[in-house]
Amino acid sequence: LLTVKALNRIRAADAIVHDALISAPIRALFPPDAVVIDAGKRGGSGTSASQDEINTILVSLARDGLKVVRLKGGDPLVFGRGSEEALALAAEGIAWELIPGISSANGAAATALVPLTHRAVSRSCTYVEGHERALHRLDWQALVALGGTWVFFMGKAAARDIARSLLLHGADPALPMAVIENASLATQTVRARTLGDVAAHGYVPQTDGPGLVIVGPTVALFHELHTLVEELNPHEHPVSDLSGLGA
Amino acid sequence: LLTVKALNRIRAADAIVHDALISAPIRALFPPDAVVIDAGKRGGSGTSASQDEINTILVSLARDGLKVVRLKGGDPLVFGRGSEEALALAAEGIAWELIPGISSANGAAATALVPLTHRAVSRSCTYVEGHERALHRLDWQALVALGGTWVFFMGKAAARDIARSLLLHGADPALPMAVIENASLATQTVRARTLGDVAAHGYVPQTDGPGLVIVGPTVALFHELHTLVEELNPHEHPVSDLSGLGA
Repeated sequence: LLTVKALNRIRAADAIVHDALISAPIRALFPPDAVVIDAGKRGGSGTSASQDEINTILVSLARDGLKVVRLKGGDPLVFGRGSEEALALAAEGIAWELIPGISSANGAAATALVPLTHRAVSRSCTYVEGHERALHRLDWQALVALGGTWVFFMGKAAARDIARSLLLHGADPALPMAVIENASLATQTVRARTLGDVAAHGYVPQTDGPGLVIVGPTVALFHELHTLVEELNPHEHPVSDLSGLGA
Repeated sequence: LLTVKALNRIRAADAIVHDALISAPIRALFPPDAVVIDAGKRGGSGTSASQDEINTILVSLARDGLKVVRLKGGDPLVFGRGSEEALALAAEGIAWELIPGISSANGAAATALVPLTHRAVSRSCTYVEGHERALHRLDWQALVALGGTWVFFMGKAAARDIARSLLLHGADPALPMAVIENASLATQTVRARTLGDVAAHGYVPQTDGPGLVIVGPTVALFHELHTLVEELNPHEHPVSDLSGLGA
């Protein structure tokens, strides 16, 4: 799902600074003589580099005269901190360009068959961060009143809290929630449950990978799309489980 | 900004049904012997084909045993009717796959330098349709209460109504609005104004092309990013005009 433009930049790069989420097939495209830095690992410590450390690395490589590609999973301007890095580079007088990517919401929607909008079903789509700290700051009442499709980035761990907060602010317990893990990878899993079910019983992670939570009426279309696709090609999406929608 | 996966499918296609928004450089990638149908033009009438007509064309081509690519600008599952077409095909027993694309919001954000989220500035992003009919159905109070970044797809023509409705429901008149026309094309224009200014004086279209409206505090970052980029490379973004933000 890399864009042609991003691929061309990778092929011409002297140095590539990438996230932990970059998959092996994409790493295989890196030029053999490029400096490759995994920002998901810091020195020998195994922890991720901080944003300040990444900014320093990018500035330092560019100052050495290298053409640097900063490669992120998803889109750099949707919870990707692309604008923070761009500002840090610009403040140092270093030229850059931003290349958009397939946001994990769009990628997950297409590979898991969960439309983000669908005429007469959902007419808006809201992206929020799905980790605990961000959820505490969210205006749940406004979100529920707005309706449409709600996408919680990295919301897997807080799936039960998300369901409970939505119900507390008036969402329909029958509204479906999909949790998509390892979106668009071979290890992708999709689970669809009602909000009431997740609030009562929680969500059991299927993998160690990242997980996106999508809530809204279009998730029920996923059920319809999925059943049709399974009939046409039973081996295409083997790990999806829709039993939680009771259909 | 085509993905590598989409490019591979285009190269292997027997037939391509595309929208009016597909640019000439992408059309140049079509296989020379492929059947090409422009769904933006119907027969000799010059009007767009209806969704039913497109569904019929897709089913008919697939029944003829052709490998068909349905090519859309943006992402098929964000106001793209991809799920409608997928359901129509599945109902006829025709197998398909969905390949995500760069949504026009993500494409416009990166090429116009308007982040959709930015830490401590905007923590959510809501996509809504920006045409008159959709705007009448929108819960403006909830949208304003939710805050974050608001993206109105195809909102150019209604920019003044959007600004007025937002102000009427309590949005800050100093909040910036960006209108991005022909996003990511050579003819791209970006104009940033405050909501108060657009509500009072309207928005003057710069081109005949489609226009996306982005409202929220990150648009002010655009100003900062843009000024820095102009200093570094004065010819990169010649048609942007930021004077409306008074900075």
